[in-house]
Amino acid sequence: MFRRSIWWDDDDVVVVDQTRLPHEETTVRWRTVEDAARGIADMQVRGAPLIGVAAAHGVALAMQQDPADLDSPYDRLRTTRPTAVNLRWALDRIRDTLVSAPPGSRAEAARRLAQDLADEDVAACRRIAEAGVELIADRHDDGHGGTVNVLTHCNAGWLACVEWGTATAPVYLAHDEGIDVHVWVSETRPRNQGASLTAWELGHRGIPHTVVVDNAAGYLLRQGLVDLVITGADRVAANGDAANKIGTYLKAVAAADTGVPFYIAAPASTFDARSADGALIPIEERDPEEVLCFAGTPVAPPGSPARNWGFDVTPSRLIRAYITDRGLLDAGQLDAVLDAGPYGG
Amino acid sequence: MFRRSIWWDDDDVVVVDQTRLPHEETTVRWRTVEDAARGIADMQVRGAPLIGVAAAHGVALAMQQDPADLDSPYDRLRTTRPTAVNLRWALDRIRDTLVSAPPGSRAEAARRLAQDLADEDVAACRRIAEAGVELIADRHDDGHGGTVNVLTHCNAGWLACVEWGTATAPVYLAHDEGIDVHVWVSETRPRNQGASLTAWELGHRGIPHTVVVDNAAGYLLRQGLVDLVITGADRVAANGDAANKIGTYLKAVAAADTGVPFYIAAPASTFDARSADGALIPIEERDPEEVLCFAGTPVAPPGSPARNWGFDVTPSRLIRAYITDRGLLDAGQLDAVLDAGPYGG
Repeated sequence: MFRRSIWWDDDDVVVVDQTRLPHEETTVRWRTVEDAARGIADMQVRGAPLIGVAAAHGVALAMQQDPADLDSPYDRLRTTRPTAVNLRWALDRIRDTLVSAPPGSRAEAARRLAQDLADEDVAACRRIAEAGVELIADRHDDGHGGTVNVLTHCNAGWLACVEWGTATAPVYLAHDEGIDVHVWVSETRPRNQGASLTAWELGHRGIPHTVVVDNAAGYLLRQGLVDLVITGADRVAANGDAANKIGTYLKAVAAADTGVPFYIAAPASTFDARSADGALIPIEERDPEEVLCFAGTPVAPPGSPARNWGFDVTPSRLIRAYITDRGLLDAGQLDAVLDAGPYGG
Repeated sequence: MFRRSIWWDDDDVVVVDQTRLPHEETTVRWRTVEDAARGIADMQVRGAPLIGVAAAHGVALAMQQDPADLDSPYDRLRTTRPTAVNLRWALDRIRDTLVSAPPGSRAEAARRLAQDLADEDVAACRRIAEAGVELIADRHDDGHGGTVNVLTHCNAGWLACVEWGTATAPVYLAHDEGIDVHVWVSETRPRNQGASLTAWELGHRGIPHTVVVDNAAGYLLRQGLVDLVITGADRVAANGDAANKIGTYLKAVAAADTGVPFYIAAPASTFDARSADGALIPIEERDPEEVLCFAGTPVAPPGSPARNWGFDVTPSRLIRAYITDRGLLDAGQLDAVLDAGPYGG
């Protein structure tokens, strides 16, 4: 098994190839910034925190080849995915560090910073675990007694980060602490990251889980089969509106309608002080073929038109709290993460 | 192209094989009641109105073979699908007619009644079209001007009925009347009846449409890309709660949250006076393999647990009105359809 989602091997970057999971547990080796850019765009790696860390590794690969040229790798990587603010933040941070360094030192400095970002992400996710585990423990202790049922969407696990994950981090910690927890895994069409990645992660950790189609979330909530909903985020605006994988808003609005608390789990690097509200977050639109085909098999009649937006925005009024590396915060307390985030302070 | 979804050919029943669409436009021939029962359970035919009509045809096939035995075909067909009330209603109706008839006349009487049910369904769906087209025309005329965008779920088209359909009937009529209408087709996992059946129907009729994943409904609603949501129903309880394909409730609650009207389109045969509210409607649970695989390709890791409920219940408070063969009704006016429905009056 893999210990992390990304690491160095000599002068190459190695990542778990998430396009091959769950059927092949394999890695892919990036030697150039172009390998990294394609790997991010084609979703060999995905998940807002990991996209940022991976982009930093991409710059480090570029510096090994041509330390004089900082702009081309920055521009190439910046355009791979638009929604996750972590990407822009990591690129800005590595450029700001390297721009004043002599070219001869940049390869080493970039590699060190990329590694630092990975280590910081692990630490942040661990703090998210600690902030969120209380929510699960409270549900377990509040007379409810038995299994705590968590509904999640997409993959906000360690595959979306470096270790631990965001939405899954409290679940992993609860399981480690002996709390009886079960996860409803929402398939997450069109790319099935729930069924293919989250189910794979949870299975490897021995955590009870059940795969359902995205359509099933409302049934589960109305039947009282969910105690709390936790998802990750790709970008949280200053007012608390959260962009996350398309379908997240449907879960949040159904949770509100059924009185089930809905939480966003994300590190400070996902909170964007420069986006005043969710309407300002750019939403990626991807290839319609992802909708029209399922695992390579066409679903719709030939020639059917399709649209494929990757994310939706959940308004802050539907979010009970934010599980962050600065603790559990409500929408009125986000300055703590906005100031620590990419464009705060 | 096919004119109807089910018809007689000599002593056989022929149905459009909906498990093969959209890639093969083919029919299957039922010679026995067992053919019909398997065809309903395996979803060669599906959709509440068509399930009822098809079950009546199944009894007629049985009467050709053994007119003395009314109970076995009734029991065999009744257990094929639990949620659609139309199934039970059609079986009760045909049994009540045949039970007092001499066995020698039953084959002919059953065939005539099955045909009557099919013809009644066509007439009911035509009246649904007329009741619903006003909603589309009103949106077109209310200063909004351009294209009217309808979001639907699953297939409540002529393939779910005999002709016209329920949710699609107003769309077909609006299109025939020259109103510029566009349909957002929700894929409808796990069996993809939206992408495979509704997109196929609309394409054949030349009606502009776009396929999206089920997760996209919230994005579309929040972006103002939907003027009205119309779905069918498998059973409507006396208080107006409506069971329909799983995922319908998510669309209804998001429509309410965004101020977009949500409508249920269904004939009186779908309104069940004996179910006081939605909690009393039995919800079918199907094979988890439908979730775990697509077209034979596994989506989740081997051994992943899954659950596969086929329907959810949308509470009447989220339903703006019911588009019925007795006109456009709100939840307080349902006596008209409940009395005319299977167990009313």
